[in-house]
Order: sequence, then structure tokens, then C-alpha cells
Amino acid sequence: MADFQTDRRHALAQVAAFFDTLLQLPDGPESRLIEAMRYTMLSDGKAFRPYLSYAAAQLFNVDEVSAIRVAAAVEAVHCYSLIHDDLPAMDDDDMRRGKASLHVAFDEATAILAGDALLTLAFEILADEATHQEMSKRLELVTALARAAGMQGMVGGQMIDLQSPQLDLDAGGLTRLQKMKTGALIGFALEAGAILGGADEAQRHALTGYAHDVGLAFQIADDVLDVDAKSVNLGKTAGKDAADGKVTFASLLGTERARDQAGLLVEQAINHLALFGDDANGLRQAAEFVIKRHS
Amino acid sequence: MADFQTDRRHALAQVAAFFDTLLQLPDGPESRLIEAMRYTMLSDGKAFRPYLSYAAAQLFNVDEVSAIRVAAAVEAVHCYSLIHDDLPAMDDDDMRRGKASLHVAFDEATAILAGDALLTLAFEILADEATHQEMSKRLELVTALARAAGMQGMVGGQMIDLQSPQLDLDAGGLTRLQKMKTGALIGFALEAGAILGGADEAQRHALTGYAHDVGLAFQIADDVLDVDAKSVNLGKTAGKDAADGKVTFASLLGTERARDQAGLLVEQAINHLALFGDDANGLRQAAEFVIKRHS
Repeated sequence: MADFQTDRRHALAQVAAFFDTLLQLPDGPESRLIEAMRYTMLSDGKAFRPYLSYAAAQLFNVDEVSAIRVAAAVEAVHCYSLIHDDLPAMDDDDMRRGKASLHVAFDEATAILAGDALLTLAFEILADEATHQEMSKRLELVTALARAAGMQGMVGGQMIDLQSPQLDLDAGGLTRLQKMKTGALIGFALEAGAILGGADEAQRHALTGYAHDVGLAFQIADDVLDVDAKSVNLGKTAGKDAADGKVTFASLLGTERARDQAGLLVEQAINHLALFGDDANGLRQAAEFVIKRHS
Repeated sequence: MADFQTDRRHALAQVAAFFDTLLQLPDGPESRLIEAMRYTMLSDGKAFRPYLSYAAAQLFNVDEVSAIRVAAAVEAVHCYSLIHDDLPAMDDDDMRRGKASLHVAFDEATAILAGDALLTLAFEILADEATHQEMSKRLELVTALARAAGMQGMVGGQMIDLQSPQLDLDAGGLTRLQKMKTGALIGFALEAGAILGGADEAQRHALTGYAHDVGLAFQIADDVLDVDAKSVNLGKTAGKDAADGKVTFASLLGTERARDQAGLLVEQAINHLALFGDDANGLRQAAEFVIKRHS
């Protein structure tokens, strides 16, 4: 029970099934939009973020339907951000998850719209009564997602990231960027589980701390991966950050020190989970996966 | 009381004041994003959609704070859609509201992100308890906005519009496009007033009917305007639809018949308002404004 890889595959399959049912091709020219959304949502991602929200919900024995709907909303927002970030006007990435980016497979306009539609859909999913019978929880989810995704979270972080070649960021500045761009949605994934589960303050605090450390470790590991890996393994263009002149944790600290830092953060993340006992073993393994995946 | 121009100016000023307070420049590189959002939200639009939601709320004596917050969310979503639609990959429009489009004044990446942030912000505004004390109403607002803005509404409509030069649409197809692209948000504006006000079924039905007819009249009038007007008066590039090879109501019906059609729709829209008596005079004037503004 609570095995990371088992639960991750389960969450991935359930989220894919959810979107397969939800995204039915309509009988009109807007079917192109739905095709584009399906291209993204039924592709084979790591499902790391949906896993985190699913696993956090499991800690509180949250109903399966609720947990999967929230995991689906998390994945929709993650995918929207990847689609928009990959656009030529942004990071200009042609590959994603081992296949052509959405704007390459379709076109830029369709990619912009598919991202917009996925972001909107996430809020529709969360507000629906199927997500949880308690209205206060649905509202809390909507508010928490909006804060994580918006100008003070992901979008603000991407705005900083785009300017980063000109910013000469130090480790503090880069950590802040990461916290907004990547950390906010990882934070929401765990917070969402806590909201669904009616977590008490200590439990919430533990999950917030875990999310913070795992999020930062994830980004540091990603930067190291970007230096080390070949594109074919990474499923996206490798070495791109350096080529774009972006400061990364790898370039600031060197890959060795960056690896050490990520390892320390993972330990710290795991320490946050003590109060959950063995129920949190999956989340412990997930934290370790963050640094092991590049070996 | 209930005068269109007075209430429209009031709603415009209050919505601008709301965003002026909300969008404070942070002390970091993400301030560029907020500047871009301010560029759009504090510009001098017609405020037609926020007026409609404000006026609908006034029919039920809804609290001013609630009415303005919802009007602000409507305007945020409208502006996000204009920003994204103006992008080079979409309609490629350099002018908007009499000044440079956001991607021209800033850059494409910033415009994409500002749109994303405004869409997200709209949901955050609606879910906040300051919008209404009743949770069920806030949830209903979030759901209704997501449906109006998403794949079955605005985004789906824009997807069809982009393909319209290849689609050979007839009046039915064009009406469906318009209903999704323009009509859905106008529908939400009025529905939102009904939700806030706890409208009964007859009142809701009346406002939905009004929204449908006004929305269609608005689009037909816009098409005629696009043919007739000079860019300087329209505040956006004129004659663009024809140049893009897009079917419009003006090209399908001819400008004379299109004008007649819009006039009939406005009459029909006004007829829906009978049950509100004199309280709906502002909405009646708004419907007439839709066809008068191009003279």
C-alpha cells in the first residue's frame, strides 16, 4: 500500500480515463480544439503532480472520485502551462514528453487556445459538486488553484523566467522564481489533498513543508538533468536553459553541489512526513524519485 | 435611475478603481506582468459587458461591492480574450481600444501571460467571499464563467472563427460561432446578475433571452461597423474581417439587411425585459446603443 510507482501509474491511468471521457469530439469545427486538448492530456507524462495530489488525498482516505478529479485539475493546469511555455514567443520548445510540442503538431493559435481551455476547465472541474459535497471545500480549491496558477504563482514565475537571461539572478532570486513557476502548483497539489481531507493545522503544515522542499529539489534536479541528459531520455530539448543564457541551479552551484543540495532537500521533505507514519511511504518514495530519476 | 450611460460610466470607473487597487506593482521582475495587466484593465473600453452584469445585478438590488466584483471578473475575461485574439498567431491585430495592442506595446510572451493571469484572476475574484456571502452563489458564478469562457464557449468560438475562412459558413453556422465566441460571455454577464440576485425562473429566462438577442445584435452591428468605419473611430483595425477572408453577417446578408436584422433583434431583446418594468430602462437603452453606436 501507498507505493509510489503503483499509485502514480494508477493516478495517471485514472486521470487519462477522466479526460478521455470528458473530451469528446464535438460535431463541429471546434473539434480541432478538443483534438489538441486530447493530444496533450492523453499523452504519457510523468504524472508527478497529479500523483502528489492523489497521494495527499489518500492520507486522509478521501473518496477516489474526489481525489482523481482534483488530480485531473492539477494535470490540466500543468499541461496548459507547458503548452504556453513551449510557444515560440516563450521558451520555443519543439519537443515535449517525447513528441512534438502542441504548437508544432497543430499550430500556434490552436496551442494558445488549448492552453486557455485547459486552464478554464480546471476551474470548472473543481467547482463541480462531483468534486466534493462540501461547498466550502470546492471554493477553497478554486481559490487555492487561482492563487497558485496566477500572477503571484506560475504566471508570475514564467514572467520572471523569461527575463532571467537579463536579470543576473543569485540563488535567492532563482529560488523565488522556482517557487512561483514550479513550486506553486506542486504546493497546490498537496494543499488540495489537505483541503479534501480536512487536514488539521499540523498536517497541513507538514504537507506545505514537504511541497516546498520537493518542489525545489525537483527544479534543481531538473536543471542538473538538463545539463546531463540527452534529449531522447528527457523527452524535451536538453541543454536548452544554458543555450538560452538562463541562470540555473546547475550553473550557479555546479552540478555536484546542486545534486547535494537536492539530496538535502529530499531528506528534509521526508522529515516533514513523520506524523503520517507508514501511510506516507508513497510520498517518501516520490521525494526520492525526484533525485533518482536522473541516474 | 437605471440610465445606461450613467450606469455604464459608473461601472467603468468602479471596475477601473477595483483593478487599480488590486494590481499593485510588486517589487520584483514580475512587475512587468502587472504593468501589462494594468495597461489593459485601466484602458478606456466601452465597458459594455461589465455594464450588463452590473445592470442585471441592479435589477435585484444586489449589493454594490458584489455587483462591481462580478463586473470586474467579466471585464477581466473579456480583456484576456481580446489580448489573446489580437496575437500574431491569431487575428494579428495591432490596435485595440485606440492604442497599441498589448503584444505590440509589450511583447508576445508578456501578452500571452497577461491574458493567462487575467483569466485566472477572474476565477479568484468570483470565489472570494467578498463577492457574495452565500457559497452556493460563488460556486454557481465560477461554474457559469468556466462554461461561458471555455471550450464550449469563447475558446471554442475563437477556434471556429480562426478556421472560418476555410469553412464557408452559412448564417446558421455563423450564428453558432457568434453565440460561442461573443454571446457566451454576454450571456454570463446577465446570468451573473441573476445569480447574485437570486432571480426566479421567469426572470432568469428573460435575462437569458435578452442576452442572446443583444449578443447577436452586437455581433451583427460590429460586422457592419467593421465594413463602414474608419480605424480611428473604431479603436481597432477596420475592414479586417473582409481582408482575412472571413464570412461576416455583413458579407452574408449585405449591410442593409444586416442592419435590419440587428434592429429586429434589439426589439426582441427589449421585449424580454417587460417583467422588470422601468427598472430595466438602462438595459433597454443598452440594447438600443448596440445598433446606434455606428451612426
